[in-house]
Amino acid sequence: MKLATLPNGTADGRLHLVSRDLSRAAPAEAAQTLQAALEDWAGLAPALEAQFAEVNAGAGDAFNPAAALAPLPRAWQWLDGSAFDSHGALMDKVFGMEDKYRPPFPYMYQGVSNKFYAPTEDVNFRFEEDFIDFEGEFGIIVDEVPMGVSAQEAAGHIRLIVQINDWSLRRIAPLEMKGGFGWVTAKPPCSMAPVAVTPDELGAAWRDARVDLNLNVWWNDAKFGAASGYPMSSGFDQLVAHGAYSRDLVAGTVIGSGTVSNETYREVGSSCIAERRGIEMMDEGAASTEFMKFGDRVRMEVFGADGQSLFGAIDQMVVKA
Amino acid sequence: MKLATLPNGTADGRLHLVSRDLSRAAPAEAAQTLQAALEDWAGLAPALEAQFAEVNAGAGDAFNPAAALAPLPRAWQWLDGSAFDSHGALMDKVFGMEDKYRPPFPYMYQGVSNKFYAPTEDVNFRFEEDFIDFEGEFGIIVDEVPMGVSAQEAAGHIRLIVQINDWSLRRIAPLEMKGGFGWVTAKPPCSMAPVAVTPDELGAAWRDARVDLNLNVWWNDAKFGAASGYPMSSGFDQLVAHGAYSRDLVAGTVIGSGTVSNETYREVGSSCIAERRGIEMMDEGAASTEFMKFGDRVRMEVFGADGQSLFGAIDQMVVKA
Repeated sequence: MKLATLPNGTADGRLHLVSRDLSRAAPAEAAQTLQAALEDWAGLAPALEAQFAEVNAGAGDAFNPAAALAPLPRAWQWLDGSAFDSHGALMDKVFGMEDKYRPPFPYMYQGVSNKFYAPTEDVNFRFEEDFIDFEGEFGIIVDEVPMGVSAQEAAGHIRLIVQINDWSLRRIAPLEMKGGFGWVTAKPPCSMAPVAVTPDELGAAWRDARVDLNLNVWWNDAKFGAASGYPMSSGFDQLVAHGAYSRDLVAGTVIGSGTVSNETYREVGSSCIAERRGIEMMDEGAASTEFMKFGDRVRMEVFGADGQSLFGAIDQMVVKA
Repeated sequence: MKLATLPNGTADGRLHLVSRDLSRAAPAEAAQTLQAALEDWAGLAPALEAQFAEVNAGAGDAFNPAAALAPLPRAWQWLDGSAFDSHGALMDKVFGMEDKYRPPFPYMYQGVSNKFYAPTEDVNFRFEEDFIDFEGEFGIIVDEVPMGVSAQEAAGHIRLIVQINDWSLRRIAPLEMKGGFGWVTAKPPCSMAPVAVTPDELGAAWRDARVDLNLNVWWNDAKFGAASGYPMSSGFDQLVAHGAYSRDLVAGTVIGSGTVSNETYREVGSSCIAERRGIEMMDEGAASTEFMKFGDRVRMEVFGADGQSLFGAIDQMVVKA
């Protein structure tokens, strides 16, 4: 099942079923919003699935992914992991924190969730001097998860997979990190690709609660990276269980993988500028790639085994607030 | 103006005006919920003020603070500071982190906000072995704050003052802190005292965007602390401006002071157990006070210059989930 949210003048927008080829969409009859659908997923999924079949058979209207909002334009909770260890090791190098303590559980912080940028919306920053960077990630959205679930139980609560750009300010990130409180000002709102998909839409590419597909990233039309989403040190099932260690997870909680990164980054490229700079520091002694400038664009898109765009594209410009 | 939210079967409850002496309450006519009021505060405040005058003159029904929900039972964003430096210094000692880096801006992390415990609701924890602790704090609630506001501009967005217990798990807190991502599992949902008040209700005790009143804390009926809310190294105006550095703050954002603590902690006591343990470590070489056990209670209450309970009381029991 594929779902998108189209603007209707409300903060949550209007939920639509989207055809598998992203060509058609129809307003969901079973739920007005994705949040409402997630609050009663088990009850509403059969009706949504039936309507999804109708849209695939030609019902609905033409769908323009570029006109969509984020599938979940606002959420009660956004918990972001950092499950690609090759990214973490590079970032520790960039930040001069290679000796820092590593906790005996997955990395996770809570970020701003009352706004997720629409996939083609301009992204506002105040200062280029804050070192504007993108971070390509996969994410999942859960229905309500009770505190204390096991990873095995958590897997069944993963209802949707999404693609995220976790915007980051690299001047501030190491200062907040070294202070021990984690990131607030280094992490403005994220962006989401236009289409959220159920795990079955990935077929064999949903494996061990990980997305075994490449996240393609272009920066100003130059290909920047195509790292695989598979090599997470903790799968999304484990991230959900960790997030639910001491709290119930409200329906509609979004959990991120952290920046997609592979050990083969010299071949596959990166999903953020800071990582490329880390590679430059290792290979050339100093970073030469600069961070983003106002007017720069970044595009992120994932294709299935059949070549079909899975989530639609994030394609945004960075602008001065 | 004093406001409370009473249960009506919805997630956001029903907003009420509460008389200054907390004896009477009436359903707000201008807004169904506190969130709705905060989304149009400037427009709705005159009508709310007018009805507040009526309730003080005898309108409405008897008010039972113990039956109230949190004034804001769920919020889109909870940003907690740590503005009492005597607390920070003690915690660094307890955690063995006295040499840690201090950033050139206020400490702040984002915590779970989709649930604030009602003031007399039982509080669920899985394990005593996680070292359950309370943290008495003051907090403020803003209407919408644009990104990049100055502290002076931020002050005008502080619409309400609240009293918070920021529940903490001390076994986990230092591990998450040393990892640099800040707290997720160490910080379950917080509790709020039943009544939110506008700054003018504090009179001269609202000073320099700080609450110049003592936060009284009892643990199992034994007085534990009565520290003043005044000596914050950053006022709430500065905390709001910091939180809005790189994001608009959504209406209804709650911002916390961090654990109320005074340099004179040996005389005035503490607002959390960890701080008392830190004092014991300094004075006696080892901590002797243990953390909370299932069945323990904690009560927090603040009185104005006239002896009147300002926010009503938080009075809760810790139970096994």
